[in-house]
Amino acid sequence: MPSFTVFKGHESGKPVRSTTTRPDALTEDYVLLRVTASGLCGSDLHYRRADMVLGHEGVGIVEAVGPSARYLKKGDRVGWGYEVDSCGHCLECLQGTETFCSDRSIYGEHNLDQGSFASHAVWRESFLHRIPDTLSDAAAAPLQCGGATVFQALYGIKPTDTVGILGVGGLGHLAIQFAARMGCRVVVLSGSERKREEAMKLGAHEFIATKGATKLSVSTPLDRLLVTAAVAPNWGLLVPILAKQAAIYPLTVDMGNFEIPYLALIVNGIHVVGSLVAGRALHKQMLEFAAMHRIEPITETFPMTEEGITEAMDKLDRGEVYYRAVLVPQ
Amino acid sequence: MPSFTVFKGHESGKPVRSTTTRPDALTEDYVLLRVTASGLCGSDLHYRRADMVLGHEGVGIVEAVGPSARYLKKGDRVGWGYEVDSCGHCLECLQGTETFCSDRSIYGEHNLDQGSFASHAVWRESFLHRIPDTLSDAAAAPLQCGGATVFQALYGIKPTDTVGILGVGGLGHLAIQFAARMGCRVVVLSGSERKREEAMKLGAHEFIATKGATKLSVSTPLDRLLVTAAVAPNWGLLVPILAKQAAIYPLTVDMGNFEIPYLALIVNGIHVVGSLVAGRALHKQMLEFAAMHRIEPITETFPMTEEGITEAMDKLDRGEVYYRAVLVPQ
Repeated sequence: MPSFTVFKGHESGKPVRSTTTRPDALTEDYVLLRVTASGLCGSDLHYRRADMVLGHEGVGIVEAVGPSARYLKKGDRVGWGYEVDSCGHCLECLQGTETFCSDRSIYGEHNLDQGSFASHAVWRESFLHRIPDTLSDAAAAPLQCGGATVFQALYGIKPTDTVGILGVGGLGHLAIQFAARMGCRVVVLSGSERKREEAMKLGAHEFIATKGATKLSVSTPLDRLLVTAAVAPNWGLLVPILAKQAAIYPLTVDMGNFEIPYLALIVNGIHVVGSLVAGRALHKQMLEFAAMHRIEPITETFPMTEEGITEAMDKLDRGEVYYRAVLVPQ
Repeated sequence: MPSFTVFKGHESGKPVRSTTTRPDALTEDYVLLRVTASGLCGSDLHYRRADMVLGHEGVGIVEAVGPSARYLKKGDRVGWGYEVDSCGHCLECLQGTETFCSDRSIYGEHNLDQGSFASHAVWRESFLHRIPDTLSDAAAAPLQCGGATVFQALYGIKPTDTVGILGVGGLGHLAIQFAARMGCRVVVLSGSERKREEAMKLGAHEFIATKGATKLSVSTPLDRLLVTAAVAPNWGLLVPILAKQAAIYPLTVDMGNFEIPYLALIVNGIHVVGSLVAGRALHKQMLEFAAMHRIEPITETFPMTEEGITEAMDKLDRGEVYYRAVLVPQ
């Protein structure tokens, strides 16, 4: 029985190497991939103690395809993210917003023995996206979840809008680039002045250091605010720089509550929008948009070994990854 | 100098009778009204200790108009709500969403010497709405803020949507009627079974008593949920009956925070929408829709005197008004 290497979470918090079997022959439209790079996402940290294969920002090369595969062939380079199977019959799947599929929970039914921290993976052809040639493996990997998450949160934005990006990290540094290339005025909010130069280089038009501030000022009120910071925002400081009827997208998942003052919400007509990764249509457009506009994550590379994964996770946990960790199979 | 009676908030919590002057002659498009009824709204309770004229659900008869008034004449019956002056040049005012006017705070610049707890009032013609003949004064008054608030929160809804109404009170009993006449499936959520019969009679299709429940069940997940109850909702109970990408409208203002679990918000793509009263275009449509569909508040009448106002406020504060208090000048 053929098998391949996978890395699973472990109660010790240190991921362990394991193996999983694969069928001798691929059925239906299943595709066997050799992983060439995987991004490390903040949500992987939530699963580092769970007995499941980690990683959902994969890039790889097609090694074999099942009999009904129609679009991919051996040698193609593809990526995959946090998308779930489409049930194919609920309203969300029919409308192309299958990340909100009513029939399956994105957490509960994620294939436990599949992940991008692995030497190989098997996925249905329809969940794989061809990677544009101009994107390297290491650049493409963090786009599969991080890129798709910020692209989804920017969905429907107008080029005349002003976008605030709170936090310059794995998500934030991608959001700045996407929003700027969409034509928007980009206002970056960060704790200190430390990342000012980098944010402006990535495409920001204004940069605001929030630490110790009692009042913020912006040239134009923010129509949309993407919250990519790990700490809860100080709404007393932020609401006054939001446009009326502004939309807030909290992108960092936390086990606690999202909180915002009732009065500020209602009097300003604020919208708070829960947003996950992009569905498949938008994921495809995100990759093409990134390639066309040369949008790339800034990455730090680690070997995909027990030690390399643990080191990358510890560093991410301390907020020291600059800006997105990529694991490379050895 | 002519004057008229007004009722102001007072630090004792008991509104006091006072007088205010009015110009001998009306200028521009100002209109002098004799108040015939005023609704009592939950937000009036917030101002019962403030030194300002109370009331923002007014109905009255035009007594005189200024030289540039063009649409109203003596004897016309009109209503007015919580709308603020339109600055006429900000984007919100130009787009007809002047309740979110960027230049004026709805709370800070509300005209302190004008209100509907009064014998008379002076307003610009453009802030007054003609009341359809089929609506009585007492029925029309609570629509000016309560009706406009739920109509705004139902804006853009599709007749195929399922609408949840949490709370059967001043706002809730109007929301049930509007949503039902819009063609929606209406699911009412209330603490006990006490209001089941009334809710169904108002147009609800399903009624759920939430007290003590550990799991709720609905025939169709809710696309939109209007929160009209005074207490914070139990999201653990409610989120499972929301459709993916459902919109939540918290309509009861509170000095605290709106709170919802992060994970539920993001995984389900929930939208939380801050919503105030309707702008003028929608206010006009709301009155016409109410008249056409015979939508009327259930009211309890009190005399507009110091004692009557205090009694109505105390009763409202205890949650005992059935369902909307109306003050009638004596």
